[in-house]
Amino acid sequence: MKFFDKTLWFNTNNRREIIHISRQIQDVVDESGITEGLCYVGSMHTTAAVLVNDNESGLHSDLFDLLEKIAPYSVRGYKHNRTGEDNAEAHLRAMFLHPQIILPVSNGQLVLGTWQRIFYLELDGKRRKRLFVKVIGE
Amino acid sequence: MKFFDKTLWFNTNNRREIIHISRQIQDVVDESGITEGLCYVGSMHTTAAVLVNDNESGLHSDLFDLLEKIAPYSVRGYKHNRTGEDNAEAHLRAMFLHPQIILPVSNGQLVLGTWQRIFYLELDGKRRKRLFVKVIGE
Amino acid sequence: MKFFDKTLWFNTNNRREIIHISRQIQDVVDESGITEGLCYVGSMHTTAAVLVNDNESGLHSDLFDLLEKIAPYSVRGYKHNRTGEDNAEAHLRAMFLHPQIILPVSNGQLVLGTWQRIFYLELDGKRRKRLFVKVIGE
Repeated sequence: MKFFDKTLWFNTNNRREIIHISRQIQDVVDESGITEGLCYVGSMHTTAAVLVNDNESGLHSDLFDLLEKIAPYSVRGYKHNRTGEDNAEAHLRAMFLHPQIILPVSNGQLVLGTWQRIFYLELDGKRRKRLFVKVIGE
Repeated sequence: MKFFDKTLWFNTNNRREIIHISRQIQDVVDESGITEGLCYVGSMHTTAAVLVNDNESGLHSDLFDLLEKIAPYSVRGYKHNRTGEDNAEAHLRAMFLHPQIILPVSNGQLVLGTWQRIFYLELDGKRRKRLFVKVIGE
Repeated sequence: MKFFDKTLWFNTNNRREIIHISRQIQDVVDESGITEGLCYVGSMHTTAAVLVNDNESGLHSDLFDLLEKIAPYSVRGYKHNRTGEDNAEAHLRAMFLHPQIILPVSNGQLVLGTWQRIFYLELDGKRRKRLFVKVIGE
């Protein structure tokens, strides 16, 4: 049984960004030498998420609009923000979108459908943050 | 270490359906011969989800009502739909409900609580779509 | 390849509670003797979730406020509640927050970021409920 760990760093220019990372994750699988198994991709922060969906900019814009509708940034009532933080909305959004994804690895390749791409979703950026990738298998 | 891959196909009569697949997933585990490990069940499409909850039709109806409240189908503003698509809401719903589930396998059985059942949630159907199942373990 | 299963029981005093379980999950990893692999932590009930985020009480309060906004407890229209149940909202909240989390295990430790903590989120408590933990690896 083989294991391979890798940390990927991000530092976005904007508070919120969606970054296509399918290539980087496949590169980690390639580097691992593992051809059958599972690949974990997870944020090590509490204000970021990992998701799999289409690489279509209109849809990404719709996602940020929906997040603003569900957990608005500018609402005053967040108790978390009384601690001096201003990112309660980013924590809440990350909880709902889930911080992690697992992908199967078969024949050395991440198993993704025709339109499926992997994204790092930054919800409170402009600072160095990281993803942890672990591949297990053989 | 053993690995077993299986693709399950669906083609719903309606745009939105929730399909009970616990038996099909246990059949894949049985076929794999793996008695200890993990079982990944994930959509290969960006407008479907996999979930674990009760097999109660009233609750399923409540879920579709809530999805319509959170990300309505008929809203005009979706940028994704300007590309000629009409399924922005299905992508957004799939992102929030997550495209995948992992289940433990112990003593050859999927570990599920008394009321837990596995469902394929079709959010933009009437065409052939598939789930990928991968069992890893021994 | 090694496997280790453990059931953790909870019985909350309140209908809704968020319980910090990072220490308990690391204890399971320690007990397993597994130093490299994956750790599954999942609810065996359909009205509870597992999440990873900050251990900050204001944020936890914000989360419960948001859940009440998205899927209110007191709404009359839930079809599930016509079966004699009063917990449709708890099922719906659990579906959105996901019943499970996977954590990597490296060098015998759960891989968590500086502020990441694991929580059991009880959404319909005051009775005995359980989490299932499975560690796989070597």
